[in-house]
Amino acid sequence: MHPIGVIRSPYKKSRDIPIQGTFKSEVEGWIELKDKYAGGLKDLDEFSHAIILYYFHKSQRQETEGRPFLERNKHGIFAIRSPHRPNHIGFSIVKIKKIEANKMYFTEVDVLDATPVLDIKPYVKYFDSRDDVTCGWLDKHFKNGNIPDETILK
Amino acid sequence: MHPIGVIRSPYKKSRDIPIQGTFKSEVEGWIELKDKYAGGLKDLDEFSHAIILYYFHKSQRQETEGRPFLERNKHGIFAIRSPHRPNHIGFSIVKIKKIEANKMYFTEVDVLDATPVLDIKPYVKYFDSRDDVTCGWLDKHFKNGNIPDETILK
Repeated sequence: MHPIGVIRSPYKKSRDIPIQGTFKSEVEGWIELKDKYAGGLKDLDEFSHAIILYYFHKSQRQETEGRPFLERNKHGIFAIRSPHRPNHIGFSIVKIKKIEANKMYFTEVDVLDATPVLDIKPYVKYFDSRDDVTCGWLDKHFKNGNIPDETILK
Repeated sequence: MHPIGVIRSPYKKSRDIPIQGTFKSEVEGWIELKDKYAGGLKDLDEFSHAIILYYFHKSQRQETEGRPFLERNKHGIFAIRSPHRPNHIGFSIVKIKKIEANKMYFTEVDVLDATPVLDIKPYVKYFDSRDDVTCGWLDKHFKNGNIPDETILK
């Protein structure tokens, strides 16, 4: 595994980041790919959204259980989105604004500045959007259309 | 990066795999985690779906452009879901059936048997499902509710 590029974002510290970028949708960032990968972006500008996979480079530990930003209860690391996980791979969906040469500009950012990128994939609603979904410990925080704006980090 | 476990699936060869598991939803598989990661599955059984990240271990090459299963046109590697991509990371959403000790059983499989697993994350509809999505070259294949069953592989 090696970085294919880097993410540029206005967030310099973890505590500045929203729990997910979709809830602070005006914030912009971009991915700057190494030149040899620029050709891989061809036709991605016809998609509205992309999946980005990246390396949680600031995480110094691996946990089996952890506390999510939203509550003090511990959960298994595979039931939360914490960076302190085996392999430290992060996953976000972003909204593509434009692509220019080796750069993909996007909104809905929830990633630290200078984060190494591992992959970009097109977001395909036919496979990636699911109905009849239940979300365990998270459902109570989003009940009745609520969007939580407090986290235990802040 | 290291495998945290292995995926078991009925698919032994690439050409047996459906384009995405959600279109052959009765097929079952499971992830068998290394024992030390079993505790990480705590509370994941309260979620209906999980994101799995894995290593495309059969891919022998990295491409900048490639042909997807659905058509003969070439697209940038970041605009398709081909395994022959930088870092060879695969991404699928699966439907959780049950969790027992270090095993997560699921349906909607689209992964080869013996694939090394890198991570499991809860699928959270509040962040992972998007409206107003356009899907570039894929939209024509799914027009008017069509589900393509032919691929150029078969």
